[in-house]
Amino acid sequence: MSHRSGWAPEVSTIDLDAPLGDPEAALCELERVYLRDAVYFHHPRYLAHLNCPVVIPALLGEVILTAINSSMDTWDQSAGATLIERHLIEWTAHRIGLGDSADGVFTSGGTQSNLQALLLAREEACRLAEKQSLIQLRRFEILPRLRILTSACSHFSVVKAAMLLGLEEHAVIRVPCDRRKRMRTTALASELERCRREGLLPMAVVATAGTTDFGSIDPLPEIAHLCQRYGVWLHVDAAYGCGLLVSTRRRHLLDGLDAADSVTVNYHKSFFQPVSSSAVIVRDRDTLRAICYHADYLNPTWAAKEGIPNQVDKSLQTTRRFNALKLWLTLRVMGPDAIGELFDRVVDLAEQAWRVLDQDTRFDVVTPPQLSTLVFRYAPQGVSPDQLDRANLHARRALLAAGAATVAGTVVDGRQYLKFTILNPATSLRDITDVLDLLAAHAAVGLGGNP
Amino acid sequence: MSHRSGWAPEVSTIDLDAPLGDPEAALCELERVYLRDAVYFHHPRYLAHLNCPVVIPALLGEVILTAINSSMDTWDQSAGATLIERHLIEWTAHRIGLGDSADGVFTSGGTQSNLQALLLAREEACRLAEKQSLIQLRRFEILPRLRILTSACSHFSVVKAAMLLGLEEHAVIRVPCDRRKRMRTTALASELERCRREGLLPMAVVATAGTTDFGSIDPLPEIAHLCQRYGVWLHVDAAYGCGLLVSTRRRHLLDGLDAADSVTVNYHKSFFQPVSSSAVIVRDRDTLRAICYHADYLNPTWAAKEGIPNQVDKSLQTTRRFNALKLWLTLRVMGPDAIGELFDRVVDLAEQAWRVLDQDTRFDVVTPPQLSTLVFRYAPQGVSPDQLDRANLHARRALLAAGAATVAGTVVDGRQYLKFTILNPATSLRDITDVLDLLAAHAAVGLGGNP
Repeated sequence: MSHRSGWAPEVSTIDLDAPLGDPEAALCELERVYLRDAVYFHHPRYLAHLNCPVVIPALLGEVILTAINSSMDTWDQSAGATLIERHLIEWTAHRIGLGDSADGVFTSGGTQSNLQALLLAREEACRLAEKQSLIQLRRFEILPRLRILTSACSHFSVVKAAMLLGLEEHAVIRVPCDRRKRMRTTALASELERCRREGLLPMAVVATAGTTDFGSIDPLPEIAHLCQRYGVWLHVDAAYGCGLLVSTRRRHLLDGLDAADSVTVNYHKSFFQPVSSSAVIVRDRDTLRAICYHADYLNPTWAAKEGIPNQVDKSLQTTRRFNALKLWLTLRVMGPDAIGELFDRVVDLAEQAWRVLDQDTRFDVVTPPQLSTLVFRYAPQGVSPDQLDRANLHARRALLAAGAATVAGTVVDGRQYLKFTILNPATSLRDITDVLDLLAAHAAVGLGGNP
Repeated sequence: MSHRSGWAPEVSTIDLDAPLGDPEAALCELERVYLRDAVYFHHPRYLAHLNCPVVIPALLGEVILTAINSSMDTWDQSAGATLIERHLIEWTAHRIGLGDSADGVFTSGGTQSNLQALLLAREEACRLAEKQSLIQLRRFEILPRLRILTSACSHFSVVKAAMLLGLEEHAVIRVPCDRRKRMRTTALASELERCRREGLLPMAVVATAGTTDFGSIDPLPEIAHLCQRYGVWLHVDAAYGCGLLVSTRRRHLLDGLDAADSVTVNYHKSFFQPVSSSAVIVRDRDTLRAICYHADYLNPTWAAKEGIPNQVDKSLQTTRRFNALKLWLTLRVMGPDAIGELFDRVVDLAEQAWRVLDQDTRFDVVTPPQLSTLVFRYAPQGVSPDQLDRANLHARRALLAAGAATVAGTVVDGRQYLKFTILNPATSLRDITDVLDLLAAHAAVGLGGNP
């Protein structure tokens, strides 16, 4: 866990043209430049970002998949691997509540899943606009009118995707949140109405099931209802919240997810899988046609006609590793309930930690958790907000430098806050309270007081 | 290697909600549904696609990186890993011949590298157009005028990226190739001139150093000269040819690469790394700003100002695995020359195989190899082209079904051809001649003759 300050990185002085010659020497060097000071997500006091410790069957899968090195682009490079990936996509779609026309593909991460979903939404919106127009529209007459509506707490990859897709600078409309950090559906309704009035084309509503900062879940049924009324693509970013798909006690938090046109799931966040393990799932496999390009040397048209299952037809990647094997072995060895139980445990702990924080006069906590994050701030009475900002920034850094724990930070209403992301089932409430004490001590130093 | 026809996939009937409970049972099942019939790239007669067998130090790296599960987005999730990735990028940029202002990032594959490079090129072109205009231009006034020029043999990810980036349908201009399948620079010059005449904005020339089908390398110095004259971004897709960066005998084939504004390298094609191991390298790190978005919870603006090395600032991904470790351990254990020698060996073999094919009256071969692919066709005299198409398609499938070897196929001038991609240093000339005999026998059956 240690991440010492003053750490002198010798990496940049290593001559990569002068090999060490044997694995042992290379590993000794690696110990110095990486392993000794690595940030270990399986440390019970790693409480920073949306990364999880990993389950052993997934590691077994990783060893196998990398040695065989199957590439998932075409059938003749992957065979059984293609069928395994497809079966996992079907299984996930079924858990979401989608029907037989659902499909999807594994991706490199949530950011790519969101990009792919928004690309499909863009193409559907263009197709619709062309169909409804009396004159032939060209792409550049449609693109500037497209809008994406998402909550103020959604992931920054939505804005990044909009830029990538060639939309205008202000194409992403940020809908305000309620005090639990969920999208306000009345505000969404007003924005949709405003778009209609102004001749803008909402190409997608992006709801979040598990925001990065607050783990908040947007009101999916109400949002789905609005999307249906206005004929807008509903994408749900469940990168974080997808763990609820296997929860035996909290599956209901995802009610309404079955109305989505596309869903981002990150098994490497809440299924305890190593990076990468992600997917994008779509309600209607026909919408994937937008990214299907044929190459004579890879996936010729005749192969598609014959039904040869070339996964590249539905992926933004070409060569692609068999990440699905990790989830496959996890489910075959442990099963979904065991994974769901691990996820439920960290959500339970977050609830307990919230009660602790709520009682602790040293800290302000923003909102009760829906999943397993807590955003809080060292805030003793009688100190100015600016001083508190400095103290909280200092506390986070000092903790990181001391190497005893890692927490994250964020900004709420322009103010510096601290954040726990609890994704380790081995973390105890004692770990949480100890880290709070450490943070308070560091923050007090930051205020100029005694630790 | 076997890939038997009539193989009944039981995968889809497996109930993923009913775990087997222990790893041994899961592995036994996996043997049946994947391992037994997997396509093994390390089999000496796997001669199909641009996938390579992998070196052992890379596998060691994979085992370590997946267990630690570092995420490369921010410093506080990766520490030493960030420095290792940065040092490998510097090393690669240096091998390319770029200066100190070069930078880059590891990507999920060549398709993502090409996308990122073209995104940067698009943003530079927009910036330039805005600067040169007397009136304030909006994005949608520029986008439809952007063009990408690339050879008729370049990878299909260029067209896919153009679509993703919101360019017009005909934004990609395919420049014809010479008989060695290299971009004709006279044709490129004419197209650039035509763009100027018609008020179009060429945003990038994409040259290829190692086309997928022919391994052909576009004339980089001449293309670079034209790009300079017309002020156009030069991207070189060296996904395949990047192995020449470590060749001791053929580095000169990449002459001119140092004039590129961006370069795609796929260590998982010609550095014998497992998927994913890829990067995009840029001449000027400032151009990466186009994809830098700040999020309070991840990479706040103050962190950038303080010089905290958050790699997410230059990546299209957010959470990202530490793929760089594989290349790192490969270089630290084996060194670049050893990798270069392995790549030289497959290029040597392709040269020998070409001489065999050129003498063999049963086959037509399209062009001598520059790297390690050969495109050829079973073509005995006196048979109609349509019959030959069917015979060659049949031969490829029959070979795959029999499981003795795997070759690829492609289309040249509307006709069905076969393709060897030789990336296994353990493949011998005897493997090649045996597979040719098998193909000829299957093709003869396809013609209705005796094997």
